[in-house]
Amino acid sequence: MATVKLWSDAEVAASPRVKAVFDDIRALRNSDFVNNFWRGLANDAPLLERTWASLKIVMVKDGALDPLTKELIYIAVSTANACSYCVHSHTAAAKAKGMSEAQHGELLAVVGMAMQTNGLVTAMQIPVDKEFLVW
Amino acid sequence: MATVKLWSDAEVAASPRVKAVFDDIRALRNSDFVNNFWRGLANDAPLLERTWASLKIVMVKDGALDPLTKELIYIAVSTANACSYCVHSHTAAAKAKGMSEAQHGELLAVVGMAMQTNGLVTAMQIPVDKEFLVW
Amino acid sequence: MATVKLWSDAEVAASPRVKAVFDDIRALRNSDFVNNFWRGLANDAPLLERTWASLKIVMVKDGALDPLTKELIYIAVSTANACSYCVHSHTAAAKAKGMSEAQHGELLAVVGMAMQTNGLVTAMQIPVDKEFLVW
Amino acid sequence: MATVKLWSDAEVAASPRVKAVFDDIRALRNSDFVNNFWRGLANDAPLLERTWASLKIVMVKDGALDPLTKELIYIAVSTANACSYCVHSHTAAAKAKGMSEAQHGELLAVVGMAMQTNGLVTAMQIPVDKEFLVW
Amino acid sequence: MATVKLWSDAEVAASPRVKAVFDDIRALRNSDFVNNFWRGLANDAPLLERTWASLKIVMVKDGALDPLTKELIYIAVSTANACSYCVHSHTAAAKAKGMSEAQHGELLAVVGMAMQTNGLVTAMQIPVDKEFLVW
Amino acid sequence: MATVKLWSDAEVAASPRVKAVFDDIRALRNSDFVNNFWRGLANDAPLLERTWASLKIVMVKDGALDPLTKELIYIAVSTANACSYCVHSHTAAAKAKGMSEAQHGELLAVVGMAMQTNGLVTAMQIPVDKEFLVW
Repeated sequence: MATVKLWSDAEVAASPRVKAVFDDIRALRNSDFVNNFWRGLANDAPLLERTWASLKIVMVKDGALDPLTKELIYIAVSTANACSYCVHSHTAAAKAKGMSEAQHGELLAVVGMAMQTNGLVTAMQIPVDKEFLVW
Repeated sequence: MATVKLWSDAEVAASPRVKAVFDDIRALRNSDFVNNFWRGLANDAPLLERTWASLKIVMVKDGALDPLTKELIYIAVSTANACSYCVHSHTAAAKAKGMSEAQHGELLAVVGMAMQTNGLVTAMQIPVDKEFLVW
Repeated sequence: MATVKLWSDAEVAASPRVKAVFDDIRALRNSDFVNNFWRGLANDAPLLERTWASLKIVMVKDGALDPLTKELIYIAVSTANACSYCVHSHTAAAKAKGMSEAQHGELLAVVGMAMQTNGLVTAMQIPVDKEFLVW
Repeated sequence: MATVKLWSDAEVAASPRVKAVFDDIRALRNSDFVNNFWRGLANDAPLLERTWASLKIVMVKDGALDPLTKELIYIAVSTANACSYCVHSHTAAAKAKGMSEAQHGELLAVVGMAMQTNGLVTAMQIPVDKEFLVW
Repeated sequence: MATVKLWSDAEVAASPRVKAVFDDIRALRNSDFVNNFWRGLANDAPLLERTWASLKIVMVKDGALDPLTKELIYIAVSTANACSYCVHSHTAAAKAKGMSEAQHGELLAVVGMAMQTNGLVTAMQIPVDKEFLVW
Repeated sequence: MATVKLWSDAEVAASPRVKAVFDDIRALRNSDFVNNFWRGLANDAPLLERTWASLKIVMVKDGALDPLTKELIYIAVSTANACSYCVHSHTAAAKAKGMSEAQHGELLAVVGMAMQTNGLVTAMQIPVDKEFLVW
């Protein structure tokens, strides 16, 4: 189904650069499972390395937003972009980080509300209020 | 600039149905300022009433997600949909609800990361891992 | 503001291929006004000719859908694609073809509803019912 | 495949709030079939209730636009948003409301034309003509 | 799965207008294989004819951009629009026109980078520098 | 207009981390001009550093695709995402890297064609041909 090869564990093991990233993914997640996204990126070792390095910094590191909030934002963007795989994988990640059914329902409600008012605003071409222009 | 008339306060005052919604917006926000989005929706009183009723339930009511988290999700969707007005108005709302500069920077980083991996996933047409299929 | 030159009437007059298209636009619309979209496309005469030829067939010719319905569909697509110019120009066209304020309000309501359920469906990754699979 | 549980009829029957909505859907459509969208929304009774209430008002009620035109607009938005399920379900709905093959073909032509000129306009960053600024 | 009938070779053979386009596709590609996109468009002969005529001019003709570059641009647009079929078919076309694995990897990297900065720019609502305003 | 502060040269000079990135941008481009995108990112030094580091690797480094081709791909994605600033800045970059008017016209034609067929494919929900499934 993919437009690129999805690397098997045997293929990963044969490429030191790819293996190093997969080892780090497994260590950080404390799990042997590595999902298909990384198996596709394995075709381009530098892109794999850069993407994982960025994701670790943005999503894993402690920061001003907690890890679950970051997953909710990720699902919101992925939904608006109609990325089916991304919605699946980050909904799974959000559940793993403690998203309750009530929080999931509320996320859906906010996403739906935002989509709706995005459409209303764009169809009406509402000009930005000067009160919103802080810069 | 808009494709519809933006109602002035005088026009609002002359329409009891529209005035009732504007009164409720002002009361709930404890401010006289009503932004252009509602002044555009005022052209269709039932749509104005329904949209405000939904927004109150979704964004204002206490729930499983706190108000700031809901604004961050709203900004994320609005960004992916390229709704300029919506990004402006909900960034202002997020700041009013306490979003710090560090949180804003982290929101940007997560949105950028999600956009990037959405593109990579779609270009590679990665199939959903069976591990993500909880239903 | 544009990334290409917008041709003045004098420049149009100096290019026979471009002039022929502009003459046809003016004749068909029975108006001297030619909007900026065509003044931008004038930089590439073959693209201008093909785009106008297609638009005449799709939007102007009598067909199975009436001209106003086609403009409503055009606004709907342009809104979802966040094309500000397109929303402005096709809302003006719809009004010129008789769109009432009530119809405009209802268009907005349908667009908003569709955006909302698009988001809900994508976030829930709802599988297509077999009843919908007519082919 | 979904990120939420799709409720069976037995599960629906056990929840009075969900059952009330499903009963209303079945009564209004005069059919026992309830599609997966509602079975997913059933996980959040208030969201289910609000979404159905809005959809009834916007799509079912007599109004300034006829029911088939509203379905065509819905398909247009869903296409631009790449919502596969939504395109399937609303194409089925449009056929049920009388969309002919010729009308379907013309809808496709208009959607394709709008997508194309949306891209051309955005790539050229065409400024809005002052003639379009009615407000 | 489609919302329209996909025409078989027998059905194509029975319609002179559709057959003429299919013959031309086969002759130009020097292959008997005609992909599903054209089998869907066959339901509307004029739309089929116009779409093929345009595609031949834009994608096949010698021009200022080489054929492979045009396919890369096509994949980029299709990815941002989340068109799964289009990503599959134009990635296959790009490979047939000589896209190497290294070029594919670099295309992915550029698409991912563009998606990311698109998100950052839109979330920050960066105003266009006057230096970019060449027109 | 922005939702964040755009840093002046004086503010940049006062922050060693931000200044280092700006110095590198100026050196690499051999120009004193630094566009607003970077002045917005300056609010979050780590995000600024990471974004510039990635952009240098993806867009500047010699690779399997030439620098102009990469800009064309960037414009294509930015157009589909309706990112006005990005279309402006990368069209300027493409011109600086030698894009001719004929190439610009052909880019527009390919983007428009891709947008159109993306819409047709999604509205028809065309299933992927097995011939395209290389993996």
